[in-house]
This record gives sequence, C-alpha cells and structure tokens, in this order.
Amino acid sequence: MIYITRRERFNSAHKLFREDWSDEQNLEVFGKCSNPNWHGHNYELYVTVKGEVNPKTGFVIDLKELKRIITSQVTDKLDHKNVNLDVDFMAGKMASTEVLAMEIYNQLKPHIEACGAQLDKIKLCETENNFVEYYGS
Amino acid sequence: MIYITRRERFNSAHKLFREDWSDEQNLEVFGKCSNPNWHGHNYELYVTVKGEVNPKTGFVIDLKELKRIITSQVTDKLDHKNVNLDVDFMAGKMASTEVLAMEIYNQLKPHIEACGAQLDKIKLCETENNFVEYYGS
Amino acid sequence: MIYITRRERFNSAHKLFREDWSDEQNLEVFGKCSNPNWHGHNYELYVTVKGEVNPKTGFVIDLKELKRIITSQVTDKLDHKNVNLDVDFMAGKMASTEVLAMEIYNQLKPHIEACGAQLDKIKLCETENNFVEYYGS
Amino acid sequence: MIYITRRERFNSAHKLFREDWSDEQNLEVFGKCSNPNWHGHNYELYVTVKGEVNPKTGFVIDLKELKRIITSQVTDKLDHKNVNLDVDFMAGKMASTEVLAMEIYNQLKPHIEACGAQLDKIKLCETENNFVEYYGS
Amino acid sequence: MIYITRRERFNSAHKLFREDWSDEQNLEVFGKCSNPNWHGHNYELYVTVKGEVNPKTGFVIDLKELKRIITSQVTDKLDHKNVNLDVDFMAGKMASTEVLAMEIYNQLKPHIEACGAQLDKIKLCETENNFVEYYGS
Amino acid sequence: MIYITRRERFNSAHKLFREDWSDEQNLEVFGKCSNPNWHGHNYELYVTVKGEVNPKTGFVIDLKELKRIITSQVTDKLDHKNVNLDVDFMAGKMASTEVLAMEIYNQLKPHIEACGAQLDKIKLCETENNFVEYYGS
Repeated sequence: MIYITRRERFNSAHKLFREDWSDEQNLEVFGKCSNPNWHGHNYELYVTVKGEVNPKTGFVIDLKELKRIITSQVTDKLDHKNVNLDVDFMAGKMASTEVLAMEIYNQLKPHIEACGAQLDKIKLCETENNFVEYYGS
Repeated sequence: MIYITRRERFNSAHKLFREDWSDEQNLEVFGKCSNPNWHGHNYELYVTVKGEVNPKTGFVIDLKELKRIITSQVTDKLDHKNVNLDVDFMAGKMASTEVLAMEIYNQLKPHIEACGAQLDKIKLCETENNFVEYYGS
Repeated sequence: MIYITRRERFNSAHKLFREDWSDEQNLEVFGKCSNPNWHGHNYELYVTVKGEVNPKTGFVIDLKELKRIITSQVTDKLDHKNVNLDVDFMAGKMASTEVLAMEIYNQLKPHIEACGAQLDKIKLCETENNFVEYYGS
Repeated sequence: MIYITRRERFNSAHKLFREDWSDEQNLEVFGKCSNPNWHGHNYELYVTVKGEVNPKTGFVIDLKELKRIITSQVTDKLDHKNVNLDVDFMAGKMASTEVLAMEIYNQLKPHIEACGAQLDKIKLCETENNFVEYYGS
Repeated sequence: MIYITRRERFNSAHKLFREDWSDEQNLEVFGKCSNPNWHGHNYELYVTVKGEVNPKTGFVIDLKELKRIITSQVTDKLDHKNVNLDVDFMAGKMASTEVLAMEIYNQLKPHIEACGAQLDKIKLCETENNFVEYYGS
Repeated sequence: MIYITRRERFNSAHKLFREDWSDEQNLEVFGKCSNPNWHGHNYELYVTVKGEVNPKTGFVIDLKELKRIITSQVTDKLDHKNVNLDVDFMAGKMASTEVLAMEIYNQLKPHIEACGAQLDKIKLCETENNFVEYYGS
C-alpha cells in the first residue's frame, strides 16, 4: 500500500454566518469571519489516494486522471466562486473549513474508487496558519 | 542607506468588475475574476522602508512601530473585508492588485515619513503565481 | 472525526548540554549544538486537535480559543526566551526538539480537553530540515 | 514513541518509459514524462524515524548519524544523476515517484534499524504539486 | 510605473558540459553538474513586466495574455524536456542558469513589447539555494 | 550584467541590548528582544553577486567558490553561535538584523572581488515576517 497526493488550489469568497441568527450573534460566535460583505482565501487542497502500485506503469493512479477528477468535481466549482452562494454541494451548509473538507471528500470518493484506487485523506489549508484533515466517516 | 521589510497578511473578497459595463463585457475582459458573487484571496503585503541606521539602536525603524502603522492604516481596513465594498481608500476604484498596491503605498507614505524614514516599496502578492511592486510615482 | 491544525511560531535560544558532563563530552555527543554561549531557532509549532463537527457552527474547536490556549500555555513562555533557563515546564530537562515537543503536548492536553476536544498531535519544526511529531504516550 | 523527520534533497534526471513499448505507447500512457531525452526534478526526501527518547541525550536518533545514513545510502547515489541509468538500486525498475520511494525505504531500513530505531515513513516530493508516502509493506 | 510578476514552472534535464573538453576537464570545472547521463531541476521562472496602469481595467498587462506568451514562447519548449538537446533557442549554448535566463529574456521581450508593456526582469530559480536575475543588456 | 544569488542559513542566539543602559531602558526600547538570557533565530542569508557571463563556462561566478567564501567568512562564524558573544566581526556592535547584514557585506566584499565579480546585495531574513537588504555604502 502506497499513498500519493496531488495539490490543487482555488480562490474563493465565503463567510461564517447563520441566517437564523442576528448579525450580533454571528459576530459574537464567528468574529470577523462573519463580515456580511464576505472575505476570501487562497485555499490549498491536498488529495491523498492509496492503493497498490501497478507493476506495468509504476503508478498507484495516473496523476493526470486524478487531476481531471479534482478539477471537474471540485475546483472548477469553487475557484473564483462564492462558497456560500455558488457551489452546489455546499448549498445550505456552513462554509467552515471543516465542512468544506468533508464535502470535498464526499464529492471525490466515488470518482476515485471508479479508477480502482481509494481516497485516503483530504487536507484543506485556509491560511498558512490553519488547515483541516478528513479521512471519511 | 539600508532597506528593511515587514510582511503582513490579509484575507479579503473582491471582484474585477466595472458597473458601467454589462456582465458580458466584464466576463470578456476580466474572465472568472468578474464573478458577480465575488471571490477572494490570502494577500501577502511586503512594506519596504529605507533609511540610515540609528547608531544607538541599530535600527532603521522600530519594527513594532512599522507594524502598528501598517495594521492601523491598511490591514485592519482590509482583513476579512470586501475590497470593493468595505474599504474607504478603495471606494470607486478598480480592485486590481495593481491599484490596491498603489493605494496602500499612498496610505502608508505620510505615516512612515512621520517616523523619519522613507517608504521604498510596496510588494503585494495575490497568489503564489503573481504579485505587484510599486515604488511611488 | 475530523482534524484541525493551528500553526504558531516562537523564537528561542537553547543548547544541548548536560551539566554533569564535561564540555568535551558535550561537544562529542551534541556537536555544535552544545555551544556554551547558546544558539537559537525560529521554531514552528503545529497543534492538531480532533473531534466531531458542531452542527451549529461547523467547527471542531473555535480557532480563536485554540490560539488563546497555545499562546498562554506555550508560546508566551517560549517566545524570545531561553528554553534551558527561562521556561518553567522545561526546568531540568534536555532542550532537544523531542523533549520540547513532548512537554508542549503535556502543557496543552488538559486545556484542550476542557474545551471538549482531543489533542491529537504536536509537530515541532526546529529548522526547514528537521521536525518532531508526538501523539502522546 | 516519538517521530523525528530529516529532509534531504537531490536533483536528478529521469523518464517514465518502458523499453518493451513503442514510443507511441509510452507517450500515450506516460505523456510528456516519457520524453526520450529525459527531464528532471528537484526531489525532496523526508525520512521519518520512530523510537523511544534516550533519557541521557533527549534524542530518538542522532540526526548527524541519520543524515550520514541517508547521504551514503541514498542521496549520494541519486543527486546529479539519472535515476534510470546511474542508480544501482533502481536498475530495471520504473522510475516513478512511487517506485523510487519504495526502493529508498528498502535502502534505508536496515541501516536505521542498526542504530536501534525504526524507519516509519518515506515521503518523496517530485514537484510542489505531488508527493508519495510509503510506510513499508 | 508599476511592476507585475508572473511565476511559471518547468521541469527539465540538463548538464554543464563542453563537447570540446574531455570528461575530466568537464568534471574539474563543472563538478557533479557535468554528469554525462544528465541530471535535472524543477525550475521556477518569474517574469516581471512594467508599465502604466490602464485606468479602464486597473491592469498593467492582462495576466492571462502574459501567461499565454510565457507558455508558448518558453515553458512549452522547456517543460519535460532536455535543455541541451530539445530546446531550439538553447542550441549550441551552455545550459547554465545564467545563459538560460538571458535566452528566456530574449525570447519574451518582443512579445511583451507587442502588448504595449516592457519586460523588466527575468528571475530563474534552479534550486531553493540559487537563482539568477537578468534585466537585459 | 547578470545577477546570481546563493542562499545560506545559520542558527544563532542574540539579544538587542546596550550594556550602558539599564534593563528597564533596554526593555522599553527593544521589548522582548532584550531578554537577558537571549533568544535566537534561523537566519536566511542571500548573497547576490553581479558580473559578466564567462563565455567558456556560462558562469558569472562558480557557485562552489561562492559557497566556500560565504561559509568560511560568514556562516562558520555565526552558525550555532551567539551573535553578541562569539563572532569576531560583531564585537562591540548592536546585534540587529541591519547591523549584522552590513557587517556580513563588509566581510564578503573583498573575497568576492578577488574572484573577479562584484558583491551586489546582502539580504538577511530574521523571521518569515522581516528581512533587511544592504547594497553597500
């Protein structure tokens, strides 16, 4: 068993905000992250796939294929978009790094398994000072 | 003459968009950067100050003082904000990296000169792949 | 279960040195790290916390709270200090990266558990070329 | 149990290519990585060792010794070399990141165990966008 | 006048080698960089363009256009290639970082001027420890 | 004219402190940087040399020779040392980044000129957030 990781990036707007709370409640819990006019990030996404090495190619998975999956299922939907407003798989969900990482995992898992590999981990970096890791439920 | 640089960071939403153009015109010129619902970045700001070294302290400028100026004049106004909507010194201006760097320079210059030093350069990084440098007009 | 990591930094002096050994013995075992007049590092500390996502906030732990704990319990005591001489929780211990990482883990664990989360891992980077990871005993 | 990691680097040429396939087949499977005249990378190698901390030294393993092992067994053989043509332990093998990581693991394991520690993991980065991790079979 | 920089990357094989010298002479002058079977690097290329800001767009140059120029004139010719053997504009030249940076500058200059901007600088990084900068002759 | 830069690193202890001031005065001016028991940094040093390219080698300067000069004149004296106490060329001087950069410049200049090249710039990074640049007087 060996693990291979591909990094992709996307630049998005978001806010941490509950519609069912007042602005004051949102500010109290989410601080400056609740700014009504949004803020944004250069997100870095690391997708780790595990499997056996194919003896013919020396590959766990063809990285061109992995990149194609990540782009079509995830980064094309998020890059230069608003996480709260523009992204189908985030509709009605909190736009925290934790929830975004979990939903990205769910988006990618069936497509990676269809290639004969396993999705091991999503790592999602919001800033140079914080990131989230998710291995599935 | 010696040069000292301080890095600060801010996370903001923006879009490249002219109100006097249609969405189609904006899309044609600004591409995905014109997304009506915004996108965002982790900006990195490098402020370079030049001057003579004070023989008593070995300093060109006290970095604590430089940090205080950058924070109060620039990053407190930009961090977790919308560059187009929330920032007084960007009102009515294009939110491109070029224009933002020039306006940050104009915000900082008088305050740094009041400390007896000179503002040499603003470097503003929008992503790991592009940045702008401005030395004043 | 999801994992969230916060990075903090501190700049400290230290040496690898046993008082019960001669300078020659210290030099033989610890090399240049035993310099009697100290040397120092820009340490990078990554604190990883695990838990369930709170469905109301989308958070495992409030990062502002995690930062407050790390600052008060660890980095305020280490930053711009001497690891061997100035730090209460390192008194009488070897100032190696391994031991420092373990003692930082012990400092943080009860405070993170008091927030309803679990401390998963401490990663402590001494230089760009070496780091230590500790998951508790 | 604690984990310590040492980073080393090497700059090598390679290609992904099977001699028993035509150039067209190689191009179809390996794309631009099959360029007959080679290409190359600045590889980053992270070697993670685990063990108990020696109470006398505060060390899991002496990093000078770990560096000596990695240099003599791995990086001296790979740095400024051709992975396909010049490296004894890669002879007749695919020069993919996966296979290279596995063979580096096999090179290092007995030498690290001879120091009384255990080899936990090899992480091998080919570019800033992809890396492989191997924990042994 | 304002400066904007775009980063691109390419992974290439090369050697430092004079055909009119013996292997021994090459080894004496170029050391391990003269390995007959090549070695390689992940090169990072920074292209800096200067000009006035267009008041309509807030741009010095459209970065999509700059990327198109760099890709077609430079990185498509170098990426996953052999600098000594495969690159038209390097034929018969030493494949040092200095010469490569100068020739990249010469490739880009007319195309950037055709966009109404000026090429200020090429910065070419061969490893994390060395890079070359060229401003034209 | 072309510019080539070599990066080297050193890990040192220092403090900002005037013996002719009280501890209170030192604390007021230098803050936590005046900690009597020292603190330390992983310094990064960038040495930029300029000159004409030698048409035989494609080099401005042989980087192995540049590394030899930096190591013997600067980093061997600073690495794993105390800047205030252990470094001949800093004796009696303030151990600020500004002064250290200027003195490193003075150490290197004659040795680089003896190689037929010119020293252009010293860049000295103290943390990821601040650095100094010096071009000579």
